[in-house]
Amino acid sequence: MPGVVLPEVTTQVPGPISKASAKKLHEVFDARAVHFVVDYDKSEGNYIVDVDGNRYLDVYSQIASIPVGYNNAAMTAAARSPDVISALVNRPAVGNFPSKRWNDILRNGLLRVAPKGTNKIFTAQSGSEANELAFKASMMLWRRRERGEGVAWTKEEIESCLENAKPGSPDLAVLSFGNSFHGRGFGSLSCTRSKAVHKLDFPAFNWPKADFPALKYPLEKHAEENSAEEKRCLEQVEQLITSWHCPVTALIIEPIQAEGGDNHASPAFFQGLRDITAKHNVVFIVDEVQTGFGATGKFWAHEHWNLTSAPDIVTFSKRAQCAGYFFGNDKLVPDTAYRQFNTWIGDPARVVMSKAIVEEILDKNLVEYSANVGDKLYQELETLARDYPEHVQNLRGKGHGGFIAFDTQEPAAVVSKMKALGVNIGTCGTRTIRLRPMLIFGEEHIPILIGAFRKTFGSS
Amino acid sequence: MPGVVLPEVTTQVPGPISKASAKKLHEVFDARAVHFVVDYDKSEGNYIVDVDGNRYLDVYSQIASIPVGYNNAAMTAAARSPDVISALVNRPAVGNFPSKRWNDILRNGLLRVAPKGTNKIFTAQSGSEANELAFKASMMLWRRRERGEGVAWTKEEIESCLENAKPGSPDLAVLSFGNSFHGRGFGSLSCTRSKAVHKLDFPAFNWPKADFPALKYPLEKHAEENSAEEKRCLEQVEQLITSWHCPVTALIIEPIQAEGGDNHASPAFFQGLRDITAKHNVVFIVDEVQTGFGATGKFWAHEHWNLTSAPDIVTFSKRAQCAGYFFGNDKLVPDTAYRQFNTWIGDPARVVMSKAIVEEILDKNLVEYSANVGDKLYQELETLARDYPEHVQNLRGKGHGGFIAFDTQEPAAVVSKMKALGVNIGTCGTRTIRLRPMLIFGEEHIPILIGAFRKTFGSS
Repeated sequence: MPGVVLPEVTTQVPGPISKASAKKLHEVFDARAVHFVVDYDKSEGNYIVDVDGNRYLDVYSQIASIPVGYNNAAMTAAARSPDVISALVNRPAVGNFPSKRWNDILRNGLLRVAPKGTNKIFTAQSGSEANELAFKASMMLWRRRERGEGVAWTKEEIESCLENAKPGSPDLAVLSFGNSFHGRGFGSLSCTRSKAVHKLDFPAFNWPKADFPALKYPLEKHAEENSAEEKRCLEQVEQLITSWHCPVTALIIEPIQAEGGDNHASPAFFQGLRDITAKHNVVFIVDEVQTGFGATGKFWAHEHWNLTSAPDIVTFSKRAQCAGYFFGNDKLVPDTAYRQFNTWIGDPARVVMSKAIVEEILDKNLVEYSANVGDKLYQELETLARDYPEHVQNLRGKGHGGFIAFDTQEPAAVVSKMKALGVNIGTCGTRTIRLRPMLIFGEEHIPILIGAFRKTFGSS
Repeated sequence: MPGVVLPEVTTQVPGPISKASAKKLHEVFDARAVHFVVDYDKSEGNYIVDVDGNRYLDVYSQIASIPVGYNNAAMTAAARSPDVISALVNRPAVGNFPSKRWNDILRNGLLRVAPKGTNKIFTAQSGSEANELAFKASMMLWRRRERGEGVAWTKEEIESCLENAKPGSPDLAVLSFGNSFHGRGFGSLSCTRSKAVHKLDFPAFNWPKADFPALKYPLEKHAEENSAEEKRCLEQVEQLITSWHCPVTALIIEPIQAEGGDNHASPAFFQGLRDITAKHNVVFIVDEVQTGFGATGKFWAHEHWNLTSAPDIVTFSKRAQCAGYFFGNDKLVPDTAYRQFNTWIGDPARVVMSKAIVEEILDKNLVEYSANVGDKLYQELETLARDYPEHVQNLRGKGHGGFIAFDTQEPAAVVSKMKALGVNIGTCGTRTIRLRPMLIFGEEHIPILIGAFRKTFGSS
């Protein structure tokens, strides 16, 4: 672990050099969302350094996407490895011409952390793509079951699908939840329900949306009404599945709704979803794009649920630095080759980097480490919430590593003040501060983070 | 250029080691489409070497995705560069936290080859994603024009889009052509019309499909009827745009339909599309995923057309080794930030690799080089077609570098025989052999390729 470095901010944020750089960039590339321009050479561990020389403790981590720290030595070694160089220079069409090393790379990398009940993988390039591939797997399975095993496609199916018409292009749906985020492709976006800025002006499929439980915090004080709320949502899910205008082939859900405001539900709720989906032959997709790879104190967030049977598909991206989905059911492999396919099928260079991340996390016990640090951080935040009840509300994420959030009145202003104090931090939903520290965030960083919060709230 | 190496095949294809490797891989990763397993360390230039030690002249190039040869020295140097290593280790959320080098990487890389009339870029990870992003840009532009410049989104729009309902999620359409291939996402797949294996069992948007001109070869002998056919198709396009049940915000077309069978149309046809789209405010998207980066004897295939005004958007991927779209119209930048956005916005490591490819192509004049070699190859194929008229029909791609194809009776059998003779080659459409040589395919490789064809057809 890196030692205790202190944040240092000597300019306004963004600083003058960041501003000028972003302006120049904007001539050729939309730079309106730039927070600051980064000197990655000088960034290290938990600290990100901008081009004005400001150094921030980073608990936003590239929108929850940096697992083991900037310029991590093991990742640097992997980046220089022959496997990565070969994959960069000789990018294969993995489905047709895999490298002789591909099998080992998968087995000694991603498959080492395959969620319980899964033993196969399909690689992709983004969480959005991974989710759409999962939807397609569920749809092919549904139609295969309807058609009958081994039954040939009809001429009518073959011809009509080229016209985007039935029966070849059937009405099939994926159920998602209010406030969810599953990506921005036309299929994944039809399941995203968090914000208009993602969805406005784009056509969408007529797919069902269920309510995500609106739990009250602290959970232990509202057990009964929260349980009733989850029961209501489960009943709604089953009602939607059984009454929708077309078959619902999959249900997709985040273990903790992240972009939508860090919304939690109980293990019992997820077990309920597992039961309902199993009952109705609906593929249960757990979208671990933001929660996976150790973010919540377990390698996969759904391990918190102790499900009686595994999810059918688990999608991942972000901290994995590559993307794809795990699955265990052979029937989710389509009846013929080339139906789930594309030119590259992911990026082997990134999959090798992912293998290095898996090794780093497992070798250094970073999941356990971050779970412990997260518990201590949560305690400090509980004290903060008591001291600043008007600024820190609905604290949540207890027992979930650093995946912690709370509501506040003016989240954008909080982020701005925190940046000026040397903490790079993010928001989600409409009123939430979300913490997405890396797995190497240590006890020594807690006072820095809490100190900045105290200064921020104390000065409001 | 590498010297003349000869192919060498000493086993059946795939060989026993390939077969065993693919079988092992298939336990964890769908390996049914594997042609053979590759030893990329031993592959070099135009030659791909499999794990059984067989060496093939590769004119398929990872489904048209290798630009400058296996283990190209300049690409290897780029893969080892600090820029690539940093981007691999510190993968940024480019829209929020771009590297200080991002501006230079874009300007000195992809933007050096920006199609005429374009000066901005949005980066992506696949051709499919690039096309969907282009569709979204066209839809936001359409609604911005309808809504009025600077007019705020209504409460009804904001709320309804979260329900996938109108008016927030309007019916808007993208027009594509029969036999086209634009990707496999739910939006891009709605524009793909080439094969049922891509589309069957997936819901699709009700979007218009126009006929792609069915030209007769050789073109010079059928000028009049081909011209009439193109006129018919143009009229159909305008009729679809003006009568479709909802606004058509974009038209997408490949300069040469690749997966669909290497179908060509004339510059006059594309000029007609440019005129019709301009007239009806339809965004004209040229999908150069397979034709771009020098594949057709020009850097971009649409340069063959001498359009009176540039396409609105040009998408790319494959040989570029990264993906995205170029555009020139500021209005294609959405009204607010975060509407065209995602966590990574492409992969800077791959974009740096693309910069190295641009440099290699420009420094070594590889577009001109491959155009000349392509002309010579075409002449030899004309002779072949005369000698084997039953096997080589509708030869096409004259003047388009190595982007050459012909129809044959049993394409799969031809591919199989060619592999046994040491040539790795691909098919497209239903009866077409397509050549996708790298830009470094040289005159010295022509006799090897033609010789293999002669042996293949002579033995049939």
